[in-house]
Order: sequence, then structure tokens, then C-alpha cells
Amino acid sequence: MDDCIFCRIVKGEIPSRKVYEDEKTLAFMDVAGDVDGHLLVIPKVHVKNVLDCGVETLDAVMHTVKRVADHLTQHCGYDGVNLLNASDECAGQSVPHLHIHIIPRRQNDGVNAWPVFDGARQDMDEVYRHIKM
Amino acid sequence: MDDCIFCRIVKGEIPSRKVYEDEKTLAFMDVAGDVDGHLLVIPKVHVKNVLDCGVETLDAVMHTVKRVADHLTQHCGYDGVNLLNASDECAGQSVPHLHIHIIPRRQNDGVNAWPVFDGARQDMDEVYRHIKM
Repeated sequence: MDDCIFCRIVKGEIPSRKVYEDEKTLAFMDVAGDVDGHLLVIPKVHVKNVLDCGVETLDAVMHTVKRVADHLTQHCGYDGVNLLNASDECAGQSVPHLHIHIIPRRQNDGVNAWPVFDGARQDMDEVYRHIKM
Repeated sequence: MDDCIFCRIVKGEIPSRKVYEDEKTLAFMDVAGDVDGHLLVIPKVHVKNVLDCGVETLDAVMHTVKRVADHLTQHCGYDGVNLLNASDECAGQSVPHLHIHIIPRRQNDGVNAWPVFDGARQDMDEVYRHIKM
């Protein structure tokens, strides 16, 4: 899409720090500067999010997520990763092009990569009856 | 593994609120009660995390993540989801059996499902040179 910032990064119209690239996906550094090594993995095709994408696209993205995560821990001195995704604006998705965040982690790095939840408000069994498939 | 709580849930030795199950995966409600509708998707086979698992296992887990997320938004009145994963203890992984968290989201639900990062400490270009593949 012409006005999608991530599509423009894929096309090279906007510069990025590309960490890994293959036919279907791209991994590059997030420019937010909010935490060291923050990476994004995206499909080259424009899909909005996990809800919007096909399984083939999701597979390609997750294979690159794993490839990059393995690289970080096997070759770059990291010990683990956090993965984050927001699918839909209501979940905090800011760029409407599917992206999985990778946060590289080290022992005792002092990084907080987990949300602080306020506690459930609804009865768990009631929610369960509502969502059970 | 005999002493793995999620393996015991798979075997039915520990009860759980199962939302979806197939040959290779299980989706069930997290008992933390930290946020409404908090779900976990796990493989039935014991693997520690995204770094430890094979691609086939990751695919199976992510297909179930997508299936459950689609169900939540298409049939249960949710508008989106957040996905979270901690791979390794250093990243906050508490149960050493691969699990992807799904947080169902609604417009203006007031849920905070994003970590508060403290800001990058290292130079981004230096990190980039270190992690580029």
C-alpha cells in the first residue's frame, strides 16, 4: 500500500536497519528507541495483522521470528526473547501492517517486557462459557 | 514431562478451562486472573520455548493462536488481541513449556497490555552492527 510506512520500508523508500530479509519477510530495528535491540518482523505483503492474514503469511513471519531469535541467542550473546504483537487498534496496534516485536533479553538486564495488568473484572467461568469453542 | 504443569494439564491430571484442543495443541484459560479472557496456547509435546522448539511445533501452535484469535473476534464480540511470549527465564518465562498468551481486546476496554519500557541504553547503530545477520 502506497501510504503504509512498512510497505515503504519493504520497497526501500524509507531507510531502515535491516537485520534479516528473505523473499517473504523482513526483520528490522524499531526506531522507537524504547528498549535495546527492539526488532520488528513483518511480511512483505501488506496484511493488517494476525486476524487479517492467511496462515501461509503467518508461517513465513513466525519462521523469520524464530530464525532471528535463534540468531540473537546463538550468536549475539542474548539469553532469551520476548515476543509481542498487537492485532487491531483496540489492542494498541499503531501501524496497520502485521508486525511481531522481538525484544532480545539477557540475564538480569533489568528490562521490563511484561504488561502490568489491572486484574480481571469478569467472572472467569462466565468468560469461559462465552469463549469456549 | 512428569513434573511439568502444562504437560499434566495436557494429560488431564490437572483440570483446566479448555477453550480449544486438537491433535497437537491446546488452548486454555490462564488461571492468573490478571486480565479478562487471558488464554494460553501450548503444544502437547513438551518443548521449552520458541528457541527450543522445531518449526513444525511452532506452526501448529501459531495456527491454533490464529484460530482462537479469529474465533474471539468473529464470534465472541472482541475486536482484537494482544499476543505475548516469554522465551527463557531471563525474559520472565515462569513455566518452562512453550506458551503463547492471548489477551482478547475490545474498543476502549481500558486494558493495558503493553510493557512500559525504560528507554534504550545502548547506541542503536552499535546494537545494529552486533545483531545484523
